[in-house]
Amino acid sequence: MSIDMKGSKPLFHRVSYFETDQMSIVHHSNYIRWMEDGRTDYMRQNGVDYAWMETQGVIMPVVSVSCEYKESAFFDEIAEIRTRVAFFNGVRLKFEYEILNEKGHVLVSGKSEHCFLDKASRKPINLYKKLPECCEITARLIKEEEQA
Amino acid sequence: MSIDMKGSKPLFHRVSYFETDQMSIVHHSNYIRWMEDGRTDYMRQNGVDYAWMETQGVIMPVVSVSCEYKESAFFDEIAEIRTRVAFFNGVRLKFEYEILNEKGHVLVSGKSEHCFLDKASRKPINLYKKLPECCEITARLIKEEEQA
Amino acid sequence: MSIDMKGSKPLFHRVSYFETDQMSIVHHSNYIRWMEDGRTDYMRQNGVDYAWMETQGVIMPVVSVSCEYKESAFFDEIAEIRTRVAFFNGVRLKFEYEILNEKGHVLVSGKSEHCFLDKASRKPINLYKKLPECCEITARLIKEEEQA
Amino acid sequence: MSIDMKGSKPLFHRVSYFETDQMSIVHHSNYIRWMEDGRTDYMRQNGVDYAWMETQGVIMPVVSVSCEYKESAFFDEIAEIRTRVAFFNGVRLKFEYEILNEKGHVLVSGKSEHCFLDKASRKPINLYKKLPECCEITARLIKEEEQA
Repeated sequence: MSIDMKGSKPLFHRVSYFETDQMSIVHHSNYIRWMEDGRTDYMRQNGVDYAWMETQGVIMPVVSVSCEYKESAFFDEIAEIRTRVAFFNGVRLKFEYEILNEKGHVLVSGKSEHCFLDKASRKPINLYKKLPECCEITARLIKEEEQA
Repeated sequence: MSIDMKGSKPLFHRVSYFETDQMSIVHHSNYIRWMEDGRTDYMRQNGVDYAWMETQGVIMPVVSVSCEYKESAFFDEIAEIRTRVAFFNGVRLKFEYEILNEKGHVLVSGKSEHCFLDKASRKPINLYKKLPECCEITARLIKEEEQA
Repeated sequence: MSIDMKGSKPLFHRVSYFETDQMSIVHHSNYIRWMEDGRTDYMRQNGVDYAWMETQGVIMPVVSVSCEYKESAFFDEIAEIRTRVAFFNGVRLKFEYEILNEKGHVLVSGKSEHCFLDKASRKPINLYKKLPECCEITARLIKEEEQA
Repeated sequence: MSIDMKGSKPLFHRVSYFETDQMSIVHHSNYIRWMEDGRTDYMRQNGVDYAWMETQGVIMPVVSVSCEYKESAFFDEIAEIRTRVAFFNGVRLKFEYEILNEKGHVLVSGKSEHCFLDKASRKPINLYKKLPECCEITARLIKEEEQA
C-alpha cells in the first residue's frame, strides 16, 4: 500500500453478488466504478461535493482511466478504496487509487484523469474561474501530498 | 412461447461475460435491462422512437416491473427478447416480454408498466395531448393484439 | 413504511454516479440489485451467511422478482433498504423489501422468491435436509413476523 | 481510426438506456465492458472461442486495462467496436481497441492485457502447452498485423 490518505478515511465497500462474474471474482469493470465512488467520497470528506458541483453547472467527465489488477476481490469481502489527488491545475484533475482487501493486499491500483465542462454548453472551463473555493481545497490536498 | 410479435422482429442479444455472476448464469437483474432494450427496439420498429420522445420533453419512467425466471441464460448464448404492448391509455403503458434461448425455451417472462412525465417539471402528462402520433401507433398495436 | 426489521438493521447504500441514468435518477434495474444486497445483509445479521451457504454446495437463485417504483433515488443520497422474510418452507423462500430515502419516503417496494439448488447438479433441494441450522433461523424469523 | 481489422468485422453495439448516466452520456465504465465484448467477438470470428476455452479449463483474467475518452456515446446510437491483437507470447495477450460512433469519430481508444490461468488451480499457464491451436491462430493474427 502506498497511498496515504492523511486525515481522510478510505471508502469501504462490501462486494455485491451481482459484481461477480463466472470466474467467481469481481468483474474487472467494477473496480473502475469503485474508483468513482472512492474519489467522490474522498472529495466530499475534504469539502468538495460533486453533487453540488453539478448544481453549479459544472460536470467532471473522465478523460482517461487505467487499472492494474494484481489480485481479485471476492463476493462478500470488504474492499478498501484509497484515493489521492495526483495533479490539479484548474483544467485537469488526476486521481490515484489503491483497492485493498481485508488482509491488506493491494488488489488494484488505478488512475483517472478528468476535465471540467460547463454542464449546459459542454465547453471546457477553468475551475479557478467558476468554483475557486473547490480549487483552493484541491490545491491544498496536492500540497499536502508533496510535503508528506 | 406465447408472444406473437406480428410483423415486428424480436431483439437478439448475445450474453456478455460481465452479465454472468458466480452461479455461472446471467445475473437476474440483467433481464430487466434486456426488457428495456426490447421495448425500445420494438417501439422503434413501429415508429415510436424513445430517444426522439425525450427530445420532445417526455420521459417514460418505469412504474412497476416483474419477472419470472424459468431457466438461465449462459455466457455467449444468443437470447431472443420478444415484446408486446399489453395496455395503453395515454397515461399508463404496459409491456409484456418473453426472453428465449437458442433452443426456443422461455427463460424469463416479464412485465413492465410506465407513465409519462414532462421532462422539465416531472409532472404526469397525458401522451394524447403531447404526442398524439405516438399514441395512435401504440393504440393500433394494442388493437392488432386484440384482433389476433 | 411497513417493514419492521425487529432487531435487525436496515442496509444503507449511498447512490453511486454510475447508478444514475439520463433521467437523472437511479436506473430502475439497480433497485433489484439493492434488494439482493439487502437480503444478503439481513440474513447475515441473523446468522445465515450466503457466501458460506455456497461453500456448502447450495445456491439460491431468484425464481421471481417484482418492484413498484413510487419515487426516485438520486445521486449521492443515502438509501435505506429494509428486508423481511415473508415465506419459507425449505424449498421456497420469499423476501419483501422497502427502499426509503433520507426523508423516510418509500421509493420502492419489492418482492423476491428463491429456490435452493445443489451447486454441482443444479437440482432442487430441500434446505431442511441440507442445512437445517439455516432453516431453523429462517423459520424463527417468519414466526417473529407473525407474532408481531 | 487506426485499427484495421483485416477480414474481421467490427462489433456493433446499440447504446442501452441503462448505460447512460446523469451527464446524459454513456458512463465511462461501460466502454471497458464493450471492449470485452469486442475482443470476444473478434477472437470468435478468428476461431478462438472464449466460452470453449473455459470448458477446457482455461480462464483469461484481465491484468491491466486503460482507456482514453475523446468523445461521448449517446443513448440509442450505434457504437462500432474495433479490436486487434497487439501482443502474444503464450503467457500474456494484449489487445487494442477503438470505439467509434456512426459519424466515424473515435470516441475511445483502449488497451487490455491478459494472462492465462488454470481454472481449477488459478495458477498461471502457458497457453502453448494447453491450447496450442488457439496459440497458432493468435500468433498468425499478430503476424498479419506486422505485415500490414
